[in-house]
Amino acid sequence: MTSTAPSVIARIGMNRSDLSHKNNDNAGKKIFYFGRTKTEGSASQRELLGGKGANLADMSSIGLPVPPGFTITTEMCAAYDELGGKMPKGLMDEVGRNVATLEEETGKVFGSKSNPLLVSVRSGAAASMPGMMDTILNLGLTDDAVAGLAAATDNERFAYDAYRRLINMFGDVVMGMHHEHFENAFDKIKKKYKAKEDNDVPTAGLIELCDAYKKVYRKHVKKDFPQDPFLQLELAIKAVFGSWNAPRAIKYRQINAITGLRGTGVNVQSMVFGNMGDDSGTGVAFTRNPSTGENKFFGEFLINAQGEDVVAGIRTPKPIKDMPKWNRAIYKQLLETKDILEKHYREMQDIEFTIEQGTLYMLQTRTGKRTGAAAVKIAVDMVKEKRIDRDEALCRVPAEDLTQLLLPSFSAHDKKDAQVIVTGLPASPGAATGALAFSAEDAVKRAQAGEDVILVRKETSPEDVDGMHHAVGILTSTGGMTSHAAVVARGWGKCCVAGAGALHIDANKKTVIVGGRRYTAKSILSIDGSTGEVMLGSVKRSTPKLSIEFGTIMKWADQVRTLKVRTNADTPADAKRAREFGAQGIGLTRTEHMFFEGDRIRPMREMILADNKKDREKALKKLLPFQRRDFAGIFTAMKGLPVTIRLLDPPLHEFLPHEAKAQRELAREMGVTPSVIQRRVSALHEFNPMLGHRGCRLAVTYPEILQMQVRAIVEAMIQCKKKKIDARPEIMIPLVGMKAELAQLRALTEETIAKVKKAKKYTGKLNIPIGTMIEIPRAAITADEIAEVADFFSFGTNDLTQLAFGFSRDDINTFLPDYLAKEVLPCDPFQTLDRDGVGQLVEIACKRGRLTRPDLKLGICGEHGGDPSSIHFFHEIGLDYVSCSPFRVPVARLVAAQAVLA
Amino acid sequence: MTSTAPSVIARIGMNRSDLSHKNNDNAGKKIFYFGRTKTEGSASQRELLGGKGANLADMSSIGLPVPPGFTITTEMCAAYDELGGKMPKGLMDEVGRNVATLEEETGKVFGSKSNPLLVSVRSGAAASMPGMMDTILNLGLTDDAVAGLAAATDNERFAYDAYRRLINMFGDVVMGMHHEHFENAFDKIKKKYKAKEDNDVPTAGLIELCDAYKKVYRKHVKKDFPQDPFLQLELAIKAVFGSWNAPRAIKYRQINAITGLRGTGVNVQSMVFGNMGDDSGTGVAFTRNPSTGENKFFGEFLINAQGEDVVAGIRTPKPIKDMPKWNRAIYKQLLETKDILEKHYREMQDIEFTIEQGTLYMLQTRTGKRTGAAAVKIAVDMVKEKRIDRDEALCRVPAEDLTQLLLPSFSAHDKKDAQVIVTGLPASPGAATGALAFSAEDAVKRAQAGEDVILVRKETSPEDVDGMHHAVGILTSTGGMTSHAAVVARGWGKCCVAGAGALHIDANKKTVIVGGRRYTAKSILSIDGSTGEVMLGSVKRSTPKLSIEFGTIMKWADQVRTLKVRTNADTPADAKRAREFGAQGIGLTRTEHMFFEGDRIRPMREMILADNKKDREKALKKLLPFQRRDFAGIFTAMKGLPVTIRLLDPPLHEFLPHEAKAQRELAREMGVTPSVIQRRVSALHEFNPMLGHRGCRLAVTYPEILQMQVRAIVEAMIQCKKKKIDARPEIMIPLVGMKAELAQLRALTEETIAKVKKAKKYTGKLNIPIGTMIEIPRAAITADEIAEVADFFSFGTNDLTQLAFGFSRDDINTFLPDYLAKEVLPCDPFQTLDRDGVGQLVEIACKRGRLTRPDLKLGICGEHGGDPSSIHFFHEIGLDYVSCSPFRVPVARLVAAQAVLA
Repeated sequence: MTSTAPSVIARIGMNRSDLSHKNNDNAGKKIFYFGRTKTEGSASQRELLGGKGANLADMSSIGLPVPPGFTITTEMCAAYDELGGKMPKGLMDEVGRNVATLEEETGKVFGSKSNPLLVSVRSGAAASMPGMMDTILNLGLTDDAVAGLAAATDNERFAYDAYRRLINMFGDVVMGMHHEHFENAFDKIKKKYKAKEDNDVPTAGLIELCDAYKKVYRKHVKKDFPQDPFLQLELAIKAVFGSWNAPRAIKYRQINAITGLRGTGVNVQSMVFGNMGDDSGTGVAFTRNPSTGENKFFGEFLINAQGEDVVAGIRTPKPIKDMPKWNRAIYKQLLETKDILEKHYREMQDIEFTIEQGTLYMLQTRTGKRTGAAAVKIAVDMVKEKRIDRDEALCRVPAEDLTQLLLPSFSAHDKKDAQVIVTGLPASPGAATGALAFSAEDAVKRAQAGEDVILVRKETSPEDVDGMHHAVGILTSTGGMTSHAAVVARGWGKCCVAGAGALHIDANKKTVIVGGRRYTAKSILSIDGSTGEVMLGSVKRSTPKLSIEFGTIMKWADQVRTLKVRTNADTPADAKRAREFGAQGIGLTRTEHMFFEGDRIRPMREMILADNKKDREKALKKLLPFQRRDFAGIFTAMKGLPVTIRLLDPPLHEFLPHEAKAQRELAREMGVTPSVIQRRVSALHEFNPMLGHRGCRLAVTYPEILQMQVRAIVEAMIQCKKKKIDARPEIMIPLVGMKAELAQLRALTEETIAKVKKAKKYTGKLNIPIGTMIEIPRAAITADEIAEVADFFSFGTNDLTQLAFGFSRDDINTFLPDYLAKEVLPCDPFQTLDRDGVGQLVEIACKRGRLTRPDLKLGICGEHGGDPSSIHFFHEIGLDYVSCSPFRVPVARLVAAQAVLA
Repeated sequence: MTSTAPSVIARIGMNRSDLSHKNNDNAGKKIFYFGRTKTEGSASQRELLGGKGANLADMSSIGLPVPPGFTITTEMCAAYDELGGKMPKGLMDEVGRNVATLEEETGKVFGSKSNPLLVSVRSGAAASMPGMMDTILNLGLTDDAVAGLAAATDNERFAYDAYRRLINMFGDVVMGMHHEHFENAFDKIKKKYKAKEDNDVPTAGLIELCDAYKKVYRKHVKKDFPQDPFLQLELAIKAVFGSWNAPRAIKYRQINAITGLRGTGVNVQSMVFGNMGDDSGTGVAFTRNPSTGENKFFGEFLINAQGEDVVAGIRTPKPIKDMPKWNRAIYKQLLETKDILEKHYREMQDIEFTIEQGTLYMLQTRTGKRTGAAAVKIAVDMVKEKRIDRDEALCRVPAEDLTQLLLPSFSAHDKKDAQVIVTGLPASPGAATGALAFSAEDAVKRAQAGEDVILVRKETSPEDVDGMHHAVGILTSTGGMTSHAAVVARGWGKCCVAGAGALHIDANKKTVIVGGRRYTAKSILSIDGSTGEVMLGSVKRSTPKLSIEFGTIMKWADQVRTLKVRTNADTPADAKRAREFGAQGIGLTRTEHMFFEGDRIRPMREMILADNKKDREKALKKLLPFQRRDFAGIFTAMKGLPVTIRLLDPPLHEFLPHEAKAQRELAREMGVTPSVIQRRVSALHEFNPMLGHRGCRLAVTYPEILQMQVRAIVEAMIQCKKKKIDARPEIMIPLVGMKAELAQLRALTEETIAKVKKAKKYTGKLNIPIGTMIEIPRAAITADEIAEVADFFSFGTNDLTQLAFGFSRDDINTFLPDYLAKEVLPCDPFQTLDRDGVGQLVEIACKRGRLTRPDLKLGICGEHGGDPSSIHFFHEIGLDYVSCSPFRVPVARLVAAQAVLA
């Protein structure tokens, strides 16, 4: 099972295990043979045979040339445990009978002086489980058999090399000896023969080494290295069984909550060798191109080599297309095998093979990893080839990988020669190159002058938004994947690397020091938001084009899904882009960003500094035309689709400057003394701004703010209607915790709508649903009451997660790494919704809300709206829509379809 | 119904209304008469007659001399509404018949030229409801009748004074005229007669005034003042009916969620006059002493005066004991009436009476307000007198008032001549006098030198704790009822006035300016924590002694209650005091306060500044003996009772100085550069410390802190055990949100306990329950999982309220006043538990926790543990105990009993 397409494999697994329940007439059977002679197991018997055993049986059963062998069941392991570490009665007899079959099939004999059978022994439980026993290769070699192997292969060096490896591995893995004892002995031999590398030791030296190893073995084990291959096998099997309860295996199961398994299987398989001469070889291949998805066989091979050599990269392998020059028959057989595998697994495969003296053996096949582009192409192609249906194709594409297709990026090729100076968190995918700007103002100024700048900040705040918008990328030294910088950047699809802690940023001196080097405003850096890499200089980047297959997958997804997908967008440009990506409306328009730009911050600050309602209203009046224009633009971009507008949410102090210098400047601008500004900033200071005077609490104390915003919405709507543009605003009141809050503000909103309608002499119908964010735990718990005065709920899962856990997103990095390392948390709950806690609150709110108002529209506009696992959950509990950043809209569309099919 | 003993009255009401259901043969009856002739209503018919009507009927029916009258039912009001503001058919006929009965009983005739009947008309619904119609007095006076009244009373002045009052009141209340029209007319008359006060106008002037008033009336009403008393009555009744649906009455019902009522009753009652000569008079009295509870008749009266005169304080009334000198017979009758009322209501009464020409009339009786001491004495005495049983006595004492009995306080007498310079919030009851200290250090130094100081701070922080402890009282200019200063002070029973916003404190200059005057460190102030008053100079205070009756009530309460009461205490002294007040254990020992005192802050800071585990452990080792000694002291004080110890909770930055000067000093002390301190403080800075790195999150990242604390607990326990002291610690791990947190920390705790046991070679059994605070919403929601690894839950309702609402206790004052004023919140949720939201979370956690572990011990240690309404809730949902500050333990004991009886 690979991580690229777990759902498919899981489903195949499930279907087959259903079969196994019906066809379970092997009860009590201790060993399952696989090979040409017979194959007793099947892919469905993972529990009994372990994953490895079941797969070997499966490949055998479809006629692939798998080296024959047998699997001892996990039940035998359980029995061994129950017996306190004794072999179950009759097991070794059964082993003997299976070895005999193996001998018959291979024509080799265990321990033979002329043509000995060698086997590998491997553990394998139903779940992948590091911490259990390593592989033992070449088992069956003895002083006699090594001579036989030398004779049979006519290769003494090969035979003794295999023997010394067995003794070493057996002593180490089965007998628990320290590896270094063997190393010391090897060093002596190498010294004697003046060999630099292991390979430089001549055959005579390897023969001496085997003797030396046997002495080392005797010295530490207090017994001779077993010369009976069956004794070797018995000891190895016992070691595998024992490793099931080794402390590190137990610990691993505890941590990963792996329960209900009875033990590990033991796989005994005849050895094949790719290093037996120039008619032998080994290789790895993909059945299709894993980068592009093109349906072309793709791989590499090495002549006279073992599998490890390909992986280790000691020798340079040849491309698979050159194989016919070496052995056309094998190449043909490999192509046939490839087809069989794809037909059998109905999926692109990643295979390993060995050719032993002209005979092809398949050692492994598994679902191949691929890029997002390849995943889309392969899935669509396989439907065309009628290998899979559309539903399966939809499930085959890892939704997360779609983002790779949308954003410009540095390919591995692009970055080949780049110098990485620091790596931070991959906070928002994309690729950006620019000169460094150390303040938002500087970024704006230089960007407007045509320069590409990367905004470098310790962390960003709403004050920086304009600068962030103008920068090509954002780089911060603190803050995590859900920091202000990360969230805002992802919302815009702007490249961001966050939390690059090694950066020492001095905003005053306009320098950043890292790795002993200093970078200034003139330095050019490139940042990769998909990997977190920060590179020196300008790195070329690639802008992918969307393929026809991408369009096909999206079309299929839309046909299947029931969950609607909206976007979070604050500007007409964002709205337009999201619409192109398939957004079915806006689920969240944040109005606060609108107050930071250019001329607007001034009246906003006047409003905040006003000490009476009249002056506040005067300042708000100046903001009205800006808001109206913003809304009209967004309505136009989204015509015919709903646009949910959240009224002012952040605490007011975010709009005032906090540094003395900026305060002095503002004071001068506004014609007041700096102390006036200071006093207001100080009065607005909060110990816990997250829990402070914000959201609808602002509207309760300053109703005039709400009134201005509602007025702007309604006037913009009427403006559009008069131009025959179908504007569909929805007004969302944030941070509601009590019904009374929403009831009072709803009444005020309705009253304002009516007033504007009257003032504008508009006689048509204006249907403006009024709803709320559910982001306060109390609101979730009392959703039945709140629903009485809400037309819709939109879950603000960011804040709901903060409050449900008592975590501050801005501060969580002080302990989140420890929590993840100690597995207190399975993942960052701000990235993937915590179903057990936060999810339960969302579910409770849905149920209770619909109890009062069955037609209540339910959506989610937190960061989780773009996270695949979370979207599955939102589908399951019956939300109407998710809303996510524009670049995640295609991801959400696909996941919504996958959720239906799950 | 009064606010002092709502539960009793409510219960009486309930019992009687049960009766009324069985005895409802008055269906359709429009009017209920009360008087000597007959009394048709009863106290049980509040719904039908309104509260006032039912009570008048009740007094009449037990034979008290109530001026006769009748009540028009609330059903008539409903009918009036349904008819669109028309009188129900037959109603006025019925009114006429009742007036006839009234005439017969009083011997007076409505509108008579010789002896006219005058009536009052009052509204009265089942629930007390401001916003409806005011009283109309003297109705029935006309040009004819006023002459008759003058003749009958032989007092022309009296008659015309009554008439002008009627015209004014009728115009104002019934006809909706502006009061000022009448005032202008009166001013002219006064000018003419050169009268300074109303009373200076001679009879002739009053007669002129009546004419002038009639003209004013005609001018504005466009009709003559009605000369038909029945027309007056009909208009008045309609006005009362109409006032039921006046906007302010509707608004009041909406806000107070008063539903299910059909309308208001109308009470028409014959007038009596205490101002008809020296044989007339009026007075108010309590059936027992409302200050002490002593069973002695207590009151005042005035000869030849109206009720208003007593209330207005124009003339000085005489004590009731002097009445026999004036009229022995009336006094005797009054004493008899007093006995009848006490017997009937089984409760101390507050009565109003009038003597009209030698005849006593009872105008009102209601449960009398009293001090806490009186409430206790009266309740216990009434049991002795066999008037009520013990259960009823327990319900009679308003638990909240018990605190008055425990704390030294300024009595009204003490404060008579005191000069109040500012009033803040009554944050922690008590009374303190001292000189001003402007820093914690100064407070400690001067207190240790024997001076009484009041610590004056803008706000306090944990750094100030030592200073707060040494001060006699605490005064702050910001922060509310649940600010740090308030909470800590209440915990200690120390007097505190918080949030006195008018204070301008300059800690550097050591001055505070208020009301234009400056106070320095030498100024002496007195602060009253029960009223929030800050007074100049030294004010005498009274330390009450606990009465025998107090002990009796407490004993009874303990016999009844099922909810246990523990205390929150951090020191042996607090523990001892709480035990004296009846605490059954400690529900919360905060360990962080222990680290602020004297020598301890130094190693604590070393620990925080350490950058590796080894140095941290070194510093922690220095703290160990302090902690062990603290715990041993508390275990000894609480021997035989459980002591729940909460492991370190606050964020570490709270232990470091935040001001540059203090940081420099610390750096010098510790031999590091100030920048080391600054960097650490800056690294520990959090945007939302409430949601930051604190609670069990500290123990996850720094397990060594937990290990030191557990070691100190176990060593102290073993120390006690060896001295045969029955120490019963319970270890509480704070801020748990996930099962994994508690599971891992529990394992570490158990491991540490075992290690200490082994190291100390202790072979006895150590039973140390390990549990957690439930204060994170996620913990409440997943309580079933958490209970798997918890022996107990203790609800931290302070933090749970913060997180459920998304409110910061430290910042809530920016909008709480608006929320209370606009009735978005019914009360401060940090004072009284929000049942609907936070309460639901507590309930969910209880149910789910006990689902997994039926024997799970459940308690609460937040501020709500001492709040009566909240305690009722905790009893209802089945908690095992509440824990509150020592001084609230008796309150909680009583409320717990009342909850059983509710």
